[in-house]
Amino acid sequence: MNREKIVANLSQKTRSKIVLLVVDGLGGVASDGQTELEAAETPNLDRLAAAGVCGLTDPVFRGITPGSGPAHLSLFGYEPTSYLLGRGILEALGVGVMVGRDDLVARGNFATLQEGLITDRRAGRITTEENQRLCQQRSSRLKEIDSASIHLKPGKEHRFVVKFSRKDLSDRLSDADPQKENEAPVPALALSEEAAPSAEVVNRFIRSVSDILQAEPKANTVLLRGFSKHPVIPRLQELYKLSPAAIANYPMYRGLAKLVGMDLIPVGGETSDLLDALEVHYDSYDFFFIHYKKTDSSGEDGNFEAKIKAIEDLDRFIPRIAALHPDVLAVTSDHSTPCRMKGHSWHPNPLLIRAANAQRDKVDRFSERACAGGYLGRFRAVEVMPLILAHAGKLKKFGA
Amino acid sequence: MNREKIVANLSQKTRSKIVLLVVDGLGGVASDGQTELEAAETPNLDRLAAAGVCGLTDPVFRGITPGSGPAHLSLFGYEPTSYLLGRGILEALGVGVMVGRDDLVARGNFATLQEGLITDRRAGRITTEENQRLCQQRSSRLKEIDSASIHLKPGKEHRFVVKFSRKDLSDRLSDADPQKENEAPVPALALSEEAAPSAEVVNRFIRSVSDILQAEPKANTVLLRGFSKHPVIPRLQELYKLSPAAIANYPMYRGLAKLVGMDLIPVGGETSDLLDALEVHYDSYDFFFIHYKKTDSSGEDGNFEAKIKAIEDLDRFIPRIAALHPDVLAVTSDHSTPCRMKGHSWHPNPLLIRAANAQRDKVDRFSERACAGGYLGRFRAVEVMPLILAHAGKLKKFGA
Repeated sequence: MNREKIVANLSQKTRSKIVLLVVDGLGGVASDGQTELEAAETPNLDRLAAAGVCGLTDPVFRGITPGSGPAHLSLFGYEPTSYLLGRGILEALGVGVMVGRDDLVARGNFATLQEGLITDRRAGRITTEENQRLCQQRSSRLKEIDSASIHLKPGKEHRFVVKFSRKDLSDRLSDADPQKENEAPVPALALSEEAAPSAEVVNRFIRSVSDILQAEPKANTVLLRGFSKHPVIPRLQELYKLSPAAIANYPMYRGLAKLVGMDLIPVGGETSDLLDALEVHYDSYDFFFIHYKKTDSSGEDGNFEAKIKAIEDLDRFIPRIAALHPDVLAVTSDHSTPCRMKGHSWHPNPLLIRAANAQRDKVDRFSERACAGGYLGRFRAVEVMPLILAHAGKLKKFGA
Repeated sequence: MNREKIVANLSQKTRSKIVLLVVDGLGGVASDGQTELEAAETPNLDRLAAAGVCGLTDPVFRGITPGSGPAHLSLFGYEPTSYLLGRGILEALGVGVMVGRDDLVARGNFATLQEGLITDRRAGRITTEENQRLCQQRSSRLKEIDSASIHLKPGKEHRFVVKFSRKDLSDRLSDADPQKENEAPVPALALSEEAAPSAEVVNRFIRSVSDILQAEPKANTVLLRGFSKHPVIPRLQELYKLSPAAIANYPMYRGLAKLVGMDLIPVGGETSDLLDALEVHYDSYDFFFIHYKKTDSSGEDGNFEAKIKAIEDLDRFIPRIAALHPDVLAVTSDHSTPCRMKGHSWHPNPLLIRAANAQRDKVDRFSERACAGGYLGRFRAVEVMPLILAHAGKLKKFGA
């Protein structure tokens, strides 16, 4: 029996509450000097670390730099090497398109068609405003094809995401994109028999949009690729008998949370909004995923001072979480985003768990290198979820 | 190739001797202050820890609280998520019924049958003494059915274990138990063709026992459930070319040891009896599993002082083991039983290995948190066996 099945079989509904605070891209790297987290003043996180138990986790396994998708799935207890998310799904989530079980999504480009050839796959990189205008125009004139409803979401420049919703749609479709310029457009081809009606819907959509756009100078057709359905993934409710809620204000993380069954709590863009949402909805759920983004953004920018500030800003809000006395309060990250690397990295995530039955260790500072000496040791992030469920009393005994 | 197969292929018979001392339920938890093991004075275990190498092991994996079955199988080198023991087997082992390869066991209840309905599934919770009398009465009148010999062992109140012994018996049988009261009794049904003769034996047994018991006011029939055969599990002799012996005085652990092929050395209930048995039989085997129970019992009771005393009592006997100079002396536990939790937990087990080629580390105290800093690190308990075999020189090189 694999880990997921064992944990699912052992899980039990209880009244205990779990708060999982994910500080995106928290970890840094120092060849000398300090990491961002070490340089930050974090009296509240340090106090939690001192009262709880610490360790380090590898998002996938050692050496693997994860994207946001696998990094979060892993934290939620899904083996990231088994549950793979298609590009189309991640693109959709990234621009805030919610994907349900009956939806088919794809990445789209506005493109230029001249004399039967795609002469510019990006329609001269039209502006984002132009993109929004075109999507709006299309939306008002094309709401449905063969009873599949259609939803278009503009992205940056020439990019958009399209969502088709109907019960029987399949993602076994080839890209409707010649990939190269000065080639003829290609239709989406059904890669299996039951995908034929889906190919029909998609290709009719492309023809209809091209008709609507025919008077446009550049953006007079569309290319679609990366067709994806909702992944086959069990929900946290079924796996762990949780009532889970997500408090996140970026589309990608809201989308990931929805994929695994979390309720999405509406929340504003300020850090205080996250805490307000937690307090308001605290009685309604037993599992809260809180996502804090600023650490990752400043890491991507390589802005050491901004990342320190983002960490210190968050630290000031920790007492408001602790004051709710969740049975388990876990603070960790999805992946590291060291300023010196200006991007995601493979470095492990610091983890702290505060709970009544956490074995207290000597770590009294929440940082990458302090956590390396913690009692939890170093392990794969996919084991975080069983561990916090255990600390919350939500797992029965395995065998007699 | 999986770990078990690799280790089996590399194992070699040598004259070196291994003593594996399992201190049941040893680990505790401290959110502040000390664990039971930290509070105990253990000069002899500390000396061993200082002279050897230490680490922490997770019985199954992080967050999973194991029962005694999977916890011991893991220590003996069996993947606990692959070798699953049925409830019937564990119940049988728990009351001291030895289960061999030709045996079929089940959990039984005495029950009340009135006018064709099971009106009480527990026969009014008859006393244990009454249960013993009934089992005795039945045993003297019903020794065999269709050349399957029958063995009945009373448990507490209305519970018993029945064992049928014949070469071709199958456990592919449904429960002979309506599960609810005021329903008609149900026979065991064969769940596959070759189980038909077994169903016949079981159902004839139920009818015969009911005939014998018909004059009883309450306990006038029996219900059977959880039919189990001996699991398909390779023996330590074949896996590791060991001559293994178990020194354990509780039925469950003797039963588990027998399942994996160990000889059972007769032993009394005192701690000194364990040591006497080891000394007397030291020349006859090359692997000794010694099981010490008192730590677990006092942990289950939540009795901090009693658990400290149990640990200190054991510590006084360590020099007698060390004086035999086994090539490998390993001290660990099957699972933690923290007094504050009054039951098994998921917390890892301290481990020490004293052997000529053990890498000495700085750990000079045998405790949960001291072992966290040991050279062995933290790992799954299923890797303990390869590690102690290696330290005993019983594993050849893998590949050239």
